[in-house]
Amino acid sequence: MPRPTPLSGYPEWLPAQRAVEQQVVDELRRTFELHGFAGIETRAVEPMSQLLRKGEIDKEVYVVSRLHADPDAAPESDDRRLGLHFDLTVPFARYVLEHSGHLQFPFRRYQIQKVWRGERPQEGRYREFCQADIDVVGDGALPFHHDVEVVEVMAEAMSRLPLPPLRMQVNNRKLVQGFYRGLGVDTDEAVASTLRAVDKLDKIGPDAVRATLVADGLSSAVADACLRLAAIEGTDSSVVDAVRALGVSSPLLDEGLDELATLLDAAGGTRGNVQVVAALKIARGLDYYTGTVMETVMVGSEHLGSISAGGRYDALASDGRTTYPGVGISFGVTRTFAPLLARGALTGSRSTPSAVLVALASEEARPAARREAAALRARGIPCEVAPAAQKYGKQIRAAERRGIPFVWFPAEATDDGAPAVRDIRTGEQVPADPASWTPPAADLRVGVVRSDADG
Amino acid sequence: MPRPTPLSGYPEWLPAQRAVEQQVVDELRRTFELHGFAGIETRAVEPMSQLLRKGEIDKEVYVVSRLHADPDAAPESDDRRLGLHFDLTVPFARYVLEHSGHLQFPFRRYQIQKVWRGERPQEGRYREFCQADIDVVGDGALPFHHDVEVVEVMAEAMSRLPLPPLRMQVNNRKLVQGFYRGLGVDTDEAVASTLRAVDKLDKIGPDAVRATLVADGLSSAVADACLRLAAIEGTDSSVVDAVRALGVSSPLLDEGLDELATLLDAAGGTRGNVQVVAALKIARGLDYYTGTVMETVMVGSEHLGSISAGGRYDALASDGRTTYPGVGISFGVTRTFAPLLARGALTGSRSTPSAVLVALASEEARPAARREAAALRARGIPCEVAPAAQKYGKQIRAAERRGIPFVWFPAEATDDGAPAVRDIRTGEQVPADPASWTPPAADLRVGVVRSDADG
Repeated sequence: MPRPTPLSGYPEWLPAQRAVEQQVVDELRRTFELHGFAGIETRAVEPMSQLLRKGEIDKEVYVVSRLHADPDAAPESDDRRLGLHFDLTVPFARYVLEHSGHLQFPFRRYQIQKVWRGERPQEGRYREFCQADIDVVGDGALPFHHDVEVVEVMAEAMSRLPLPPLRMQVNNRKLVQGFYRGLGVDTDEAVASTLRAVDKLDKIGPDAVRATLVADGLSSAVADACLRLAAIEGTDSSVVDAVRALGVSSPLLDEGLDELATLLDAAGGTRGNVQVVAALKIARGLDYYTGTVMETVMVGSEHLGSISAGGRYDALASDGRTTYPGVGISFGVTRTFAPLLARGALTGSRSTPSAVLVALASEEARPAARREAAALRARGIPCEVAPAAQKYGKQIRAAERRGIPFVWFPAEATDDGAPAVRDIRTGEQVPADPASWTPPAADLRVGVVRSDADG
Repeated sequence: MPRPTPLSGYPEWLPAQRAVEQQVVDELRRTFELHGFAGIETRAVEPMSQLLRKGEIDKEVYVVSRLHADPDAAPESDDRRLGLHFDLTVPFARYVLEHSGHLQFPFRRYQIQKVWRGERPQEGRYREFCQADIDVVGDGALPFHHDVEVVEVMAEAMSRLPLPPLRMQVNNRKLVQGFYRGLGVDTDEAVASTLRAVDKLDKIGPDAVRATLVADGLSSAVADACLRLAAIEGTDSSVVDAVRALGVSSPLLDEGLDELATLLDAAGGTRGNVQVVAALKIARGLDYYTGTVMETVMVGSEHLGSISAGGRYDALASDGRTTYPGVGISFGVTRTFAPLLARGALTGSRSTPSAVLVALASEEARPAARREAAALRARGIPCEVAPAAQKYGKQIRAAERRGIPFVWFPAEATDDGAPAVRDIRTGEQVPADPASWTPPAADLRVGVVRSDADG
């Protein structure tokens, strides 16, 4: 067959690139598990009736059908028809309801899986991509300290990834909605439309937002107050003072201010490359958030949009008897790393897990070489025996091409009849015992290499 | 919404079960990487034209389409229409062709991913399931020692899994076909139909196979010889003597015998729970195998069919200029473990990664408790702070219900004002420093628990 061409929107990686992606997933998982989040996987498909519940995203859903389904059969109902999940929240809500009798609440879970959306592909937007979600779910009630927890866990997880500086912006819906109420915006509908208008601040600028608010019926003074609130930022509870200074009050505002102050006291500030900062313009478009909201951008790559986002929802799921509130954050693994991998800003130090290539003197020496390789593996050192007994120069160059740092010479391959290992980056060769020699820790696994351009 | 019901053929696990599945995947990956196999992932979808190339399995393919695709548009060609992959071999062959210019050959890769088939679900047969494949692929040629390698690597990987005794049966197509040729079965078609008939030996028994062979035109004596060959088994090169004793010879038979003897010398016999044994009845139905073939069964659960299978194929892929021969084995992760998890023969020791629950004296003590938890995590100990400051007895029982082995009491929660840790299985409580205390290694991760019934 002719050489296949890539499918737009479905990124795929060469082995060295995939090694970086795998390490990212491993690191996320490690952090989530250290904090007691249990890993689950849900099936890739859900009934269309579940996937279409939110309405607004139905254009993006991929329907799955058997090739030889009977074309004359009555069309299947959306309860029976299946589609690929487009996020991990809808399947998780279903999982919680389906298995609630077997789960202990509050239930803390992480989930790292592919999701699919039939969107037009572009940089940072894919049709198949990997998401890493953490959520804590309660049955009936869920204390606020879990909001603090998910922010801390995701900030810690992101701080361990090979990424440029990140800015995790947090806000609180109660604060914003309470502020609007205190200003006299007095219907749910008016509060919601004000929120939607302010959410466009970064896209259209303050003048256009003010015009929208006034057109929506707000007075000039109220519109200005909304914009002044949206301009407030900070990493500690001075943010609360700045809001108070605007002279507005309402019970809901007080509640939101308390929550935001608690969050900032515990999690505000900088950890490695991640800054957690209150930014009161952050609204998150989705209706179901009811308290804390957060989104993270890469500093300098804000045009890629948020790489991580989430919030508190009072009703993740409900079965009529019990309502399950939750708080969670999703991190876009593909969305964040695909652009970095694609332009070479990040790659792996080698195209194989092997830290050592065991050289071969002759095909007859293969069994002996295999034994020495097995001795290295028994101590956790990834290695492989050369595929052919070529001249040593050729074997070394083959290792070099794949980025393997060490070549091992079994006893029968050295002048003095004792095994030796060569660091082919320096050319230094030393006698070595396969039962005890160990490479430097940094060479044991594939390293993550950043290009100079991206620091 | 009402409680959702499971989807037949799409197994899903509770957290303790998922922990076992995750450890299986980790262990497979670790072994593959120790042997220098590079991990890749391919997208879930392939063009239908690729998926339907083999013809025989087209009924099983799931087609993927956008919900709002224009119903009046001309139907898409199979080059553009997409389906979910039903194995990892078809996508890997496409990957090799697409990226051949960027790969180093021989290319050793592993791939652990979900695949989908629209089959009727039953025990051991699922619609969504996880496969773990290893393959070595060459450009133009691939030496036989790679056949030995994949058998050894998969046997080693399986020997590290929590499984009952396994029997990995190997054979060689050249040997069998050469034997038939030596008997005078002299057309490709007759050789193939003889192979297919013998492949049914376990299902229909020797008498029915003999009848089929004779009906196909073989003499009684030739049919008997085919059955005598199929009866030969053994873990060493005595198998070769047994074949020679049948008094048949042909150049292809010699080649096959040499290969099988080499394989048995290096990999025959028992490693842990895995026995590698030549069984000359093994044929593997698929046409594309050209030399080594292998399949693995669980001893005592042969009715579940093979849990791992593979072989040598002279043409994994071809772009017209270069042909890529390969040898590989696939291990059915879901197929093997779903029945064991579903009937409780295996489960995890706890429903959370947390080895420690940090108890809480009061809500005010939460920040201090969080600091002690962070000190434990800094040394790789998964832990969590109690969700509420209930009575200690309640906090301990909550840990017990989830299988968490240790409860940590921060300084302000103990009588003497020094932190302490209690093993809640024994009740033993000792003073402990969060900067140095470590649980026994066996308690650090979720353990795999086998039920007595399955040993």
